[in-house]
Amino acid sequence: MKALTYHGAGTHRWEDVPTPTVRDPQDAVIRVDAVTICGTDLHILKGDVPEVEPGRVLGHEAIGTITEIGPGVRGFVRGDRVLISCISSCGRCRNCRAGAYGQCSGGGGWVLGHLIDGTQAEYVRVPFADTSLHKLPEVVGDEEALMLADILPTSYEVGVRNGHVRPGDTVVVVGAGPIGLAAITTARLFSPSRIVAVDPSPARRDAAKRFGADVVLDLPEADPDALASLTRDGQAAHVAIEAVGVPESFELCTRLVRAGGHVANVGVHGKPATLHLEDLWIRNLTITTGLVDTISTPLLLDLLAEGRLGTEGMITHRFDLDEMLTAYDTFARAGETGALKVALFRR
Amino acid sequence: MKALTYHGAGTHRWEDVPTPTVRDPQDAVIRVDAVTICGTDLHILKGDVPEVEPGRVLGHEAIGTITEIGPGVRGFVRGDRVLISCISSCGRCRNCRAGAYGQCSGGGGWVLGHLIDGTQAEYVRVPFADTSLHKLPEVVGDEEALMLADILPTSYEVGVRNGHVRPGDTVVVVGAGPIGLAAITTARLFSPSRIVAVDPSPARRDAAKRFGADVVLDLPEADPDALASLTRDGQAAHVAIEAVGVPESFELCTRLVRAGGHVANVGVHGKPATLHLEDLWIRNLTITTGLVDTISTPLLLDLLAEGRLGTEGMITHRFDLDEMLTAYDTFARAGETGALKVALFRR
Amino acid sequence: MKALTYHGAGTHRWEDVPTPTVRDPQDAVIRVDAVTICGTDLHILKGDVPEVEPGRVLGHEAIGTITEIGPGVRGFVRGDRVLISCISSCGRCRNCRAGAYGQCSGGGGWVLGHLIDGTQAEYVRVPFADTSLHKLPEVVGDEEALMLADILPTSYEVGVRNGHVRPGDTVVVVGAGPIGLAAITTARLFSPSRIVAVDPSPARRDAAKRFGADVVLDLPEADPDALASLTRDGQAAHVAIEAVGVPESFELCTRLVRAGGHVANVGVHGKPATLHLEDLWIRNLTITTGLVDTISTPLLLDLLAEGRLGTEGMITHRFDLDEMLTAYDTFARAGETGALKVALFRR
Amino acid sequence: MKALTYHGAGTHRWEDVPTPTVRDPQDAVIRVDAVTICGTDLHILKGDVPEVEPGRVLGHEAIGTITEIGPGVRGFVRGDRVLISCISSCGRCRNCRAGAYGQCSGGGGWVLGHLIDGTQAEYVRVPFADTSLHKLPEVVGDEEALMLADILPTSYEVGVRNGHVRPGDTVVVVGAGPIGLAAITTARLFSPSRIVAVDPSPARRDAAKRFGADVVLDLPEADPDALASLTRDGQAAHVAIEAVGVPESFELCTRLVRAGGHVANVGVHGKPATLHLEDLWIRNLTITTGLVDTISTPLLLDLLAEGRLGTEGMITHRFDLDEMLTAYDTFARAGETGALKVALFRR
Repeated sequence: MKALTYHGAGTHRWEDVPTPTVRDPQDAVIRVDAVTICGTDLHILKGDVPEVEPGRVLGHEAIGTITEIGPGVRGFVRGDRVLISCISSCGRCRNCRAGAYGQCSGGGGWVLGHLIDGTQAEYVRVPFADTSLHKLPEVVGDEEALMLADILPTSYEVGVRNGHVRPGDTVVVVGAGPIGLAAITTARLFSPSRIVAVDPSPARRDAAKRFGADVVLDLPEADPDALASLTRDGQAAHVAIEAVGVPESFELCTRLVRAGGHVANVGVHGKPATLHLEDLWIRNLTITTGLVDTISTPLLLDLLAEGRLGTEGMITHRFDLDEMLTAYDTFARAGETGALKVALFRR
Repeated sequence: MKALTYHGAGTHRWEDVPTPTVRDPQDAVIRVDAVTICGTDLHILKGDVPEVEPGRVLGHEAIGTITEIGPGVRGFVRGDRVLISCISSCGRCRNCRAGAYGQCSGGGGWVLGHLIDGTQAEYVRVPFADTSLHKLPEVVGDEEALMLADILPTSYEVGVRNGHVRPGDTVVVVGAGPIGLAAITTARLFSPSRIVAVDPSPARRDAAKRFGADVVLDLPEADPDALASLTRDGQAAHVAIEAVGVPESFELCTRLVRAGGHVANVGVHGKPATLHLEDLWIRNLTITTGLVDTISTPLLLDLLAEGRLGTEGMITHRFDLDEMLTAYDTFARAGETGALKVALFRR
Repeated sequence: MKALTYHGAGTHRWEDVPTPTVRDPQDAVIRVDAVTICGTDLHILKGDVPEVEPGRVLGHEAIGTITEIGPGVRGFVRGDRVLISCISSCGRCRNCRAGAYGQCSGGGGWVLGHLIDGTQAEYVRVPFADTSLHKLPEVVGDEEALMLADILPTSYEVGVRNGHVRPGDTVVVVGAGPIGLAAITTARLFSPSRIVAVDPSPARRDAAKRFGADVVLDLPEADPDALASLTRDGQAAHVAIEAVGVPESFELCTRLVRAGGHVANVGVHGKPATLHLEDLWIRNLTITTGLVDTISTPLLLDLLAEGRLGTEGMITHRFDLDEMLTAYDTFARAGETGALKVALFRR
Repeated sequence: MKALTYHGAGTHRWEDVPTPTVRDPQDAVIRVDAVTICGTDLHILKGDVPEVEPGRVLGHEAIGTITEIGPGVRGFVRGDRVLISCISSCGRCRNCRAGAYGQCSGGGGWVLGHLIDGTQAEYVRVPFADTSLHKLPEVVGDEEALMLADILPTSYEVGVRNGHVRPGDTVVVVGAGPIGLAAITTARLFSPSRIVAVDPSPARRDAAKRFGADVVLDLPEADPDALASLTRDGQAAHVAIEAVGVPESFELCTRLVRAGGHVANVGVHGKPATLHLEDLWIRNLTITTGLVDTISTPLLLDLLAEGRLGTEGMITHRFDLDEMLTAYDTFARAGETGALKVALFRR
C-alpha cells in the first residue's frame, strides 16, 4: 500500500510499504477513508520529535472501515465505520483506569504516527482496538468526524475543561488556527459572556468570528487593558487558552488573565517560556498543560451528532489520498494558502 | 507608642509614633500582645516592595487585645483576645463574597504593614474588624495562635489545598523554613503516603523531620530519579510545594512532579523563572500561584484548639517587644542563628 | 403606607401600616417599584409557615429605589435602583463567609416577609444592605430584574448547579411553573443535549417549549422508559429537577434518573416523601435539597444584561400595586388564570 | 471441588461442584486461599436477591493464587497472589471508562456469587482478569488483604468519599459492624475533628473505639442535640454515614446532619425509608447512595502496605475452608457470637 513515511529531518515520501496486519489479539486493521495532517506532523518533519524513527508512517487522525480484527476485540466487527483516536489506550494500566489515556503506561498514549505506524496511509493497524476506536453513527459525516480524532477533544479537554470555562466568563483564545477555532466552538458549551480571539492573520480572525468569537484582536491590540475594557467588571479575562505553541503566546496568556484566572496551555512547545513569578506569585493563577486523553470523545461525538458543535469551515482544502505530498505542502504553507485543516479522502 | 517603621531601603527604626485610634466605624484598635516577623518584611526593608511608603509601621501577623472599637463592629467587644489576620477583608466586594479575601477590592487584602500601618507596634488599627479578626479561645496559646496569622493558612491554602494533596500522595516540599514546615504539618491532614522535604540547611532538614517529613534531602540529592525511587510506583511526586521564592526552587518543583501532578507555588518571588514548556506541555501539570485568602483560618483555629496541628518548635527565638531591632537582626541572619519564626511579646 | 399583611391562616389585607425607617446603620429603606408574589406566600396564607406572625407584611421579591440609607452602608446611596434579594446576608457569620447566605446565622437568610416585614408594600426596610442588595444597570428592565429576586437564582443554584448539569446531559424538569421554567432557561447555559419538561397542564407544557424544553410530557407519559427512549444511550435522565413540592413529583424524579444521576429538589415541601432505598441504594444517586443562597445573583444579573437568559413570558399578569388583592387572587387560581408570575408596579 | 451453593431461600450446602476452568480469553481461575462472608450473602440465603439462581456458588470476597489463565490476559501470570475484587470490570464500556465499574454494562459489576459462581469455593473463575484482579505485594498479609475485597473500598468510596469528609468535620457513623468500622478507619485519612459511632451493641461500640471513634453512642442517645453538643460550633454532624441498611438508621442519619451536610448511604436496604422533605427541603442536604466501584482499591492497597489503615480486629473468627457451614452460622448469629468478619483459609 501507499503511505507517507518519514526519513529523517526534511525527507518524507509517499511510497509503497507493506500493508499492516493484525499482530496482537487486540488489534484492528482499518482502511483509511479520510485522514488529515496535524501541526505536530510538521514538527516531526523538521526533526523536532527525535523518537520518530526513519521509515515511520506518520499520521494520528483518521476515520476508516475495519477490514481485519484480532480475536480479542469484543466491541467491533469487520466493516464497522470507526473514528481512529489520536490516543490509544490499553485500558488496563493505572493511568488508563484513572482516565489519563494520554499517559497510558501499557503501550498506548500517543503512539500512532509516532512510535508505531500511523494513519497517513491506505491502511493502518490500531492496537487496543476496544479502548481506542469509536464507532461512528451514520448521522455524523466524514469531515466532521475527522475533527474528533484530535482537535475537538484536545481543545475541549486541554483548553476548555482545564481552563474551567464557566457561564459569564471572558475567555481569550490566543491563536485562531484549527485548535483555537475548536477551542472557541467547545468553549461555547459553557456560555461564556465573551470569547476574544487573538491572531495576527486577518483570515484567521475572520474564521474566529465565524466560529463564534465575539471579539477578534490583532496581536498588537492584545494587552490586558484592551481585554479589561471588553469585560463588564474591567478585570481582563477569566480564562486564557494558548493555542499556538511559542513562548510569546504563552507569556501573553499569563498577562491577559485576571487574578484568580486560568491559563490553559494547548500548544505544542519547542522552547521554554519565561514565567514572571515576580508579578504572578500573588495573582492566584492556575496554569495547566496537557496532552489530550480523548476521554471526552464519546461526549463530543454525541454533541456532533446533535449538531451542537460547529465544525463547518474547519477543513479548507480537500485532496485525494495519493495527493498526500501536495496536501502536506498546502498545509505547511498555511500563511499563504490560508489552510486550516486539510483532508484527504480515499477515492 | 513605639513601633517599627520603614524609612526607605536599608533604614528601619524602633521609634515613637502616634498611637492609632478608630477612624472608621468598622475599625478596631488592638493592643499587641505577641507579634512576629515575616520574610516579606525583610523584602520590604531591602526596598523590594516599592508601594510601602516611608514612615510605615511594618508587620502583618499578631495577636492582641481589643482596646477600642468602632460603632459599626458587631462581632467583637473591647477586651476580646483576637488573632489579627495578615489579610483584611471588606466582606462586601465581589472578591470577598467569593471567598477571595486576598484579592479584596474594597480596601482590604494585604494592607497591614504594607499600605496601612501594621502590627509591629504597641497598638494597631485593624479595618473591617468583623471580617478580619478572629476571636481566640483560651485553649489556644499565644505562640501557636501567632502561627495562624499567616504561615498556617498560607501553607494550607496556597500549598496544600491548591496542590490537591490527597491520601497516598507523595508530596515534596522545597524549602523547610517556616512556610515549608507549616506545609508539612498541614499536608498531613490529608494522609499523604510520603512527605519529602528538600533544604540545603541541615538544621532545617532536622526541623522538617520533627514536623513530619518522612524523608529529607539536601539540594543536590533532589532529582526526579531520587524522588521516583521513594515512591511505590516509581513516578516522582504527585505534588510539589515551592516554599522558598527563587527561580531555582520553582524550576526544581516542575522537575520533581510526575505527569498529572501539581506544583503549588507559595514562595514570594522577585525574579522570573524559566518554564520548560518544551518538556512540560505534554505532562498534564497544574501550576498554581496565590496570595493567601485566610478563608481557612476558622478551620485551622479549630484544628489547633484540638491539638491536630503541630506548631511546637516553629518559634525558635523569643524577645520583648522593645527588642524589635534585635529580633529583626536575628531573623535576618537565619542562616547563622538558626531562626525559624521569632516572636516578640508585650512585657 | 399600604402593605399586604397576614393575619392568621386565611386572612390577609391590603391596609395602612407605618412606613419603615432605618433602624440599624446597615439598613436601607427602599421604595418598591415592582414586586411579585411567590408560591411560598400562598403557603404562608394557608398557615403552613407558623413562624410568620400576625400583622407581618409579606413578600420577598422586589425591585425599587433607595430612599433612606443607614450610616454604615458603603456601597449604595439614596436614589440607587436596586434588586432586593429574597435572601438577606449579614456577610460576617461563618455561613455567609462560606457563601451559604441562605443559612446566615447573623440575622439574615430568608427573613423578608417571613421574620421581618417584606416587599409587598410601598416601602420596605432591608437589613445588611451592602450584602443583600444589588445595583441594577439601566440595560436590565424592571420585569426581568424581578425574576432575579428569587426564581432565577433558586432554579440555577438549587436546581441546575446542585444537579451538576453538564454538556450532553438529558435533564428532566418536573413542574413547569415559574421555577421550572427558570430551571429550563438556566440549564441551557451548560448545553444539555435534551431538556424534558413534565407538567399536567397543557399551557405550562407550551410555556416550557417556549423557554427551551426539547420535549414536553404529560404526567402519565413520564416513566423511565419514555425518558430512556429520548436519550441516545437509552438510560433515562442524568439530572432530574423537582420544581413542584409534592411527594409524588419528588418520587417521580428518583425514578426518572439513571444510575449515577442527580436529583435536585427545588420545590418547597409540606409532607414527607418515600425514598425507595430498596431500589436506589445500588444506583449511585445524588439527591440534593436547598434554600437558595443568591450567591449567583451577580453572575445572573450579568447574563441577563447580556441577553443570555430568556425571561420573556415569565410574567403573565400585570397590576398596579394597589391591586394587590386581585393579583393574589389571580396567582392563587393559576390553574384557571394561567398565571405564571404576576407583577405589580408602582403607578 | 467443594463450594457453598445456594438452593433457594433457606437452603445452602457445602457440596461438590465441577472445578471451574477458563472459558473466555480474559478469564483467570484462582485457587482460593482466604475467603470471607458478606452480609449480602445472608440476604441471598433469605431469598432477598431473586436473581441468584439455584446452584449458584456464593461469595464475592477472596484472595488466592492464579492456577490457570486465559490467553488474552496480559497483566497476570500463573502463580500470582491476587485480590479478587467484589466488582468485576470489563474495562471497555462507557461506565467502566468513566470509573463506574460497579455499573459496568459489559458483563461485569457485581457478578461474582450473584450472576456467576463466586469465591466461597476451592477455586473460582474470574472474568476480565486484567481489570478485576489486583496483584498483592508480600508485605500485605492475607487477613488484611481480605478486607480490601469489599469493605474497605465500599466504606471509603460510598461512605467517606461520597460523604466528602474533610479536615475538621464531625462525622457520625451509624452502625459499627464491619462496614461501619471500615468507614471509621478510612474517614480518619481526612482528619475529621470528631468521629461519632452509633450502635446498640456494647461490643460493637467498643470495637468502634478501637478503630478510632472519638465518641460512641447507644441508639437512644443519638439525637441531634447530643451530636450538636459534641461539636465546637453546636451544629450537629457535617457527615452522616449509614452503615446498617434499615429505614430507621437512614432516617436517623438525616436528622443527625447539619444544614449543608452530607448523608452517605452505604447500607444495603430492603425497604423504603421516609424522607422528611418538609424539614429537609430547606437544609441544603446532599444524600448519596451507591454500589462500590473499587476504583480506590489500588490506593487502599498502597495505604495498607504502608500501615496507614488499621484492620486489626476486623476478623473475629477464623475457620478452615471446609468449615464453611459453621462459619456461616457464626456470622449469621453475630449478635450472640460477636462476629464482625469471619475468615476461612485453605488448609
